[in-house]
Amino acid sequence: MGINSISYCKMDIKEYINKKQFVIDNYLKNYFSSPIKPGILYESMTYSLFAGGKRIRPILALSAYEVCGGNPEHILPQASAIELIHTYSLIHDDLPAMDNDDLRRGKPTNHKIFGEAVAILAGDALLTEAFKMMTECEIKKIKKSSLLKVIKELSSASGAHGMVGGQAQDIISEKSEPDKNTLEFIHTHKTAALIRASVRTGAILAGSKKSILNALTKYGECIGLAFQIIDDILNIEGSIEELGKSAGTDIEKGKMTYPALYGNEKAKQKSEELVSSGISALKIFSSEADPLREIALYLLKRRA
Amino acid sequence: MGINSISYCKMDIKEYINKKQFVIDNYLKNYFSSPIKPGILYESMTYSLFAGGKRIRPILALSAYEVCGGNPEHILPQASAIELIHTYSLIHDDLPAMDNDDLRRGKPTNHKIFGEAVAILAGDALLTEAFKMMTECEIKKIKKSSLLKVIKELSSASGAHGMVGGQAQDIISEKSEPDKNTLEFIHTHKTAALIRASVRTGAILAGSKKSILNALTKYGECIGLAFQIIDDILNIEGSIEELGKSAGTDIEKGKMTYPALYGNEKAKQKSEELVSSGISALKIFSSEADPLREIALYLLKRRA
Repeated sequence: MGINSISYCKMDIKEYINKKQFVIDNYLKNYFSSPIKPGILYESMTYSLFAGGKRIRPILALSAYEVCGGNPEHILPQASAIELIHTYSLIHDDLPAMDNDDLRRGKPTNHKIFGEAVAILAGDALLTEAFKMMTECEIKKIKKSSLLKVIKELSSASGAHGMVGGQAQDIISEKSEPDKNTLEFIHTHKTAALIRASVRTGAILAGSKKSILNALTKYGECIGLAFQIIDDILNIEGSIEELGKSAGTDIEKGKMTYPALYGNEKAKQKSEELVSSGISALKIFSSEADPLREIALYLLKRRA
Repeated sequence: MGINSISYCKMDIKEYINKKQFVIDNYLKNYFSSPIKPGILYESMTYSLFAGGKRIRPILALSAYEVCGGNPEHILPQASAIELIHTYSLIHDDLPAMDNDDLRRGKPTNHKIFGEAVAILAGDALLTEAFKMMTECEIKKIKKSSLLKVIKELSSASGAHGMVGGQAQDIISEKSEPDKNTLEFIHTHKTAALIRASVRTGAILAGSKKSILNALTKYGECIGLAFQIIDDILNIEGSIEELGKSAGTDIEKGKMTYPALYGNEKAKQKSEELVSSGISALKIFSSEADPLREIALYLLKRRA
């Protein structure tokens, strides 16, 4: 039986995801309900933040916290802050000096609407605001030491030793002969680091013991890597309508990707293996981890 | 007697500043002693971080902490983190899409050496690393709640409601008819917010009572505003050799500055008044605040 036909506990994962998306969107809308001066900065920040993101990273944080027995509503600031980091990274990645993309989530990219200067500043502002958001906490149950650990975790995962390092390597490796080590570096840093940290955020805030944190870390690592490989496959096989952004751009730019190095079929196989390993890492949990298992399968089947 | 001839307690402020600079530089060098991958990102980050910055903001944090009775060595991570924020802001401000400057501190700007993509990423990485650095604390004396307050303080001051907001307004106001309210918004946000927050960082970490925090806040606000006005005057009156960057660029770009709106003489007068008010705000302190008083006078006399 292939991994694509596995299903856990007959839960409706789409409904689960939709509900979580709704809660996160609500938190973000409320947080950004008062306009910021100057208006163009506010418009630019909220344009990309509310452009239809799937909120996968915050959902992973909420679900991991839930698996550890917590009420996900208690960590909405920390989970939602991850979406600010993700959104800033997309705005900066799309800039002419970087990937020079015109389309994102079916809409013109940020700099196409607001100009490069404002797009750079909107990214800067979202990244900075993320760390302010992380300090928000009304619930005494969450320890201040855990909040500091999460700030350290997410700054590590998204900075030079994580996402930014991966993006820099990605940019400078364009049109280079693909090699296994560089590709692995790009994948683990550019995408997997923040996804892994999202899952760990939930576990850290729940004050989970080491064995649980380790299992969730392994899960996050596997689905993070799978996520990037699937993204690269979709860039080749997807259509502009499905993706909401131009397809085939990786080949055009000579990006170092898993399909470019190993071919599409082997890439698909690898992504399935990773999702399978991610689910295996959850074997210490009972049905409470079904949402995380289902999310892993959902990511494998995604078309955008 | 003009404010320029005032001197407190015969202390050698240059020696005081040099000693503090040395300690901060040492902390930063040690923090960034292990190379980051990819090498070009590491080079780009450290190129701007060690380009001869005066470390005024971290020094203000250390001095404010000292005034409150603390040992400044205990808050080096939080003070130095402010320099990462300041450095990132300079790299991004200099970009072609922003102020398009070729020279900074007597050297080519970051993007001139490393290209726009790497410069953007180096700025992103420094900003992100700042928040990681702020979580570093080995001293039990500093409360975790104070660390969280400082993270909130510095993210507020440097984000959309602070520095980034000011920079956005500055960019979109170029070549507009100068007006008092917009100019005040730019000054209080672009520069004063982070300087004010630097002083407050020291006070917050020392757990100082409200009256002390208020006095230091007022001091920070006044010298922050004075700092920007002096910067704008120097842009007109300074030479490329003194400034380490091109002079006269504000007029060229049609920047909304204090001298542009009120003329050089009135701008100088305003900066002296602000420094005087800043020093007055310190009247609740005895000689322990002399370094802060002397720093205010030093900023007034600076030529770069």
